[in-house]
Amino acid sequence: MTRTSTPAMLVNGAPPGDPELALPANDRGFHYGDGVFESALLRTGRVRFLEDHLERLYGGCERLGIPPPERAVLLADIEQVTAGSLAGVLKIVVSRGPGARGYRPDSAAEPTRVVALHALPEAADTREIALRWCTMRLGRNARLAGIKHLNRLEQVLAQAEWHDRRIGEGLMLDTEGELVCGTASNIFIVRDGVLVTPDLRYSGVRGVMRKQVLRAAAQLGIAASEEPLWPEDLERASEVFVTNAVRGVRCATSLGSQRWPPGRIAARLIAELESLH
Amino acid sequence: MTRTSTPAMLVNGAPPGDPELALPANDRGFHYGDGVFESALLRTGRVRFLEDHLERLYGGCERLGIPPPERAVLLADIEQVTAGSLAGVLKIVVSRGPGARGYRPDSAAEPTRVVALHALPEAADTREIALRWCTMRLGRNARLAGIKHLNRLEQVLAQAEWHDRRIGEGLMLDTEGELVCGTASNIFIVRDGVLVTPDLRYSGVRGVMRKQVLRAAAQLGIAASEEPLWPEDLERASEVFVTNAVRGVRCATSLGSQRWPPGRIAARLIAELESLH
Repeated sequence: MTRTSTPAMLVNGAPPGDPELALPANDRGFHYGDGVFESALLRTGRVRFLEDHLERLYGGCERLGIPPPERAVLLADIEQVTAGSLAGVLKIVVSRGPGARGYRPDSAAEPTRVVALHALPEAADTREIALRWCTMRLGRNARLAGIKHLNRLEQVLAQAEWHDRRIGEGLMLDTEGELVCGTASNIFIVRDGVLVTPDLRYSGVRGVMRKQVLRAAAQLGIAASEEPLWPEDLERASEVFVTNAVRGVRCATSLGSQRWPPGRIAARLIAELESLH
Repeated sequence: MTRTSTPAMLVNGAPPGDPELALPANDRGFHYGDGVFESALLRTGRVRFLEDHLERLYGGCERLGIPPPERAVLLADIEQVTAGSLAGVLKIVVSRGPGARGYRPDSAAEPTRVVALHALPEAADTREIALRWCTMRLGRNARLAGIKHLNRLEQVLAQAEWHDRRIGEGLMLDTEGELVCGTASNIFIVRDGVLVTPDLRYSGVRGVMRKQVLRAAAQLGIAASEEPLWPEDLERASEVFVTNAVRGVRCATSLGSQRWPPGRIAARLIAELESLH
């Protein structure tokens, strides 16, 4: 199968004749951000941590009351979109689908699913990055915390804050000043030898790589904790790193005037995660 | 011009060949809720309070850093979509448009605009309604408060809470317990003879009808205040009403065990608003 005969995108299971004209004008994803998504890493022809991505996607659908696509249907889409490709970013979107005007969801709605394969981002394998603080804050809402829903204006405006390519990620506080995450990543610190990551009870996304890092820590006997963190905690941190499914673990070298040397615990976790393949 | 020759919808100025295939698969409205919208009332062939709607739409674009459509272009769309129709709901959506994967907006993005005319909702002219409390809360974020952006999952989940058609609107608190609005309306109370409405500094939408009610109050010499309100304030209220651009002013008759008689101040405001036409 040649590359061009493989559709890079499926909308409801079919390649759109024209990707510019692919979605319903009344799709609730477009009108209200009413849906969920995943961004997974394809490497050596396999979707990394696919089970974790599907678990979060289905969990998000359940939280929003969206009838999810059947697993076999979604897997067939994924197989078709990734066939013949070795590396890339698999993006899956499930919205509540077309609907009448008005916020109230129609229980008869038929969800829209988009499954697409994108090129890897630039510098996807960078392992050390500089951080910055974002001024954009995250609103708190326990009912929406953890899932990867389509209401992402806070992240959009946060990433719009900087264009300096030497900065690899921006950190976000919630409106009460708690440290939550990066704009597109979870954050871990090592404090007094313990691995700590925000508990995400009010905002943020429960990252697939975050889960894998916690699993790896347990495997290695590294003490770990999910708890509220504050900016001051970074001053006491011996290591800081951010994680996401596409870029993996990236160690922070600096944040403002703070500097961190290469982290010993991060290195062990990265090695453990790589050993899975 | 017959009704069928008038397109009920324009996407970027043209009627979509197939409304089911009308939007780009990579539109940032769909992927991130990255945009703003308006819902205005068309009656006697005119868009009511069009200037206020456009002002909020352009203000929202500015807040999000979305280059807005030119005013003349938007007005031409509106004229074309409403031509030959006397009544309906004019919906305008402006998203940041198609984009590459990732939150960061591309400054070269070309916004997508959708202008559509919908049928009036059922019971659009009901003037008295029962209220309920929603359990869904509104997250606080001053940077997004006031504008009518496309991140509306909180409203979607709030409206999903009830199906009793005798309930006309659900009231929403923010995560700190402040009273903010209805799911698709602003709220006013009369307390000690003063008209009071939440100040919306942390969440909620600055409604077009809210603005008109405040204007009408000033015109009539009715004292009015925008300030934080709490659920307890409803117990001290002699009148409660909710407002939105499509349904106008609707007086609350009940909320749980509370009852309100027809409001004298609401009646004066409604009369003043009607006198504009």
